[in-house]
Amino acid sequence: MKENQDEFFMKAAMQEAQLAFDKDEVPIGAVIVCQNQIIARAHNLVETLNDVTAHAEMQAITAAADYLGGKYLNGCTLYVTVEPCPMCAGALYWSQIDKIVYGITDEKRGYTSISPKLLHPKSTVVSGIFKDEILKLIQQFFLNKR
Amino acid sequence: MKENQDEFFMKAAMQEAQLAFDKDEVPIGAVIVCQNQIIARAHNLVETLNDVTAHAEMQAITAAADYLGGKYLNGCTLYVTVEPCPMCAGALYWSQIDKIVYGITDEKRGYTSISPKLLHPKSTVVSGIFKDEILKLIQQFFLNKR
Repeated sequence: MKENQDEFFMKAAMQEAQLAFDKDEVPIGAVIVCQNQIIARAHNLVETLNDVTAHAEMQAITAAADYLGGKYLNGCTLYVTVEPCPMCAGALYWSQIDKIVYGITDEKRGYTSISPKLLHPKSTVVSGIFKDEILKLIQQFFLNKR
Repeated sequence: MKENQDEFFMKAAMQEAQLAFDKDEVPIGAVIVCQNQIIARAHNLVETLNDVTAHAEMQAITAAADYLGGKYLNGCTLYVTVEPCPMCAGALYWSQIDKIVYGITDEKRGYTSISPKLLHPKSTVVSGIFKDEILKLIQQFFLNKR
């Protein structure tokens, strides 16, 4: 079966998650795509930067807006390996991004555990892409921490 | 009547809001206080930086963690002129900050419009300090925009 676009870009987000894993960061990666092109890549850097706001999504939003020269991400899609937290969902709301694709659900701290209304009403959401592979990396990370 | 500590530090946040106003930014300012000392000052820079994540609170959290050399803001208080949005509330959750003091409620996009659970359960909240003065500055900003 031919790989679809969402799978193609999620693989790029998974590469970012692996970079986080290699730095001993919770392995979450993200890319932002606009007109079929990756315009921002980022991974979790909370420990490296000593900054709770340094989630992959936050950095990707800032980098994408910088690339586009405007603060809104209309016409863009975020690919992120794990469901965004409320902070990141709130940032995505302000960005007015078109679409959000995530791999696995975060039952404890995903935005849907608070409210789906954290996202902008015009943002569409797709989930579950490569969820087995993504879960495996996360589980390996926490296993190593024991 | 003697000025209390919350009033003293909210005045510093209001000075930051005025700096935002002077830059034609929505006038919101914040400071973070630890052991009776201001360790971070910031104001809204969304337009200046073309970045929806550049709220006063987000910058203050990053700056305070940088000052302290650790990502958690235990023992700290955030003073912000306007009720934090869900993004900023989500960041404050991760920071585990002790106390949040805000001036005016944001009925449209304040975190309480979604859920008070966006904040960490251990964070205490105080609101309403200098609300008339803060509202006046916000109203003046939007009046100038007409």
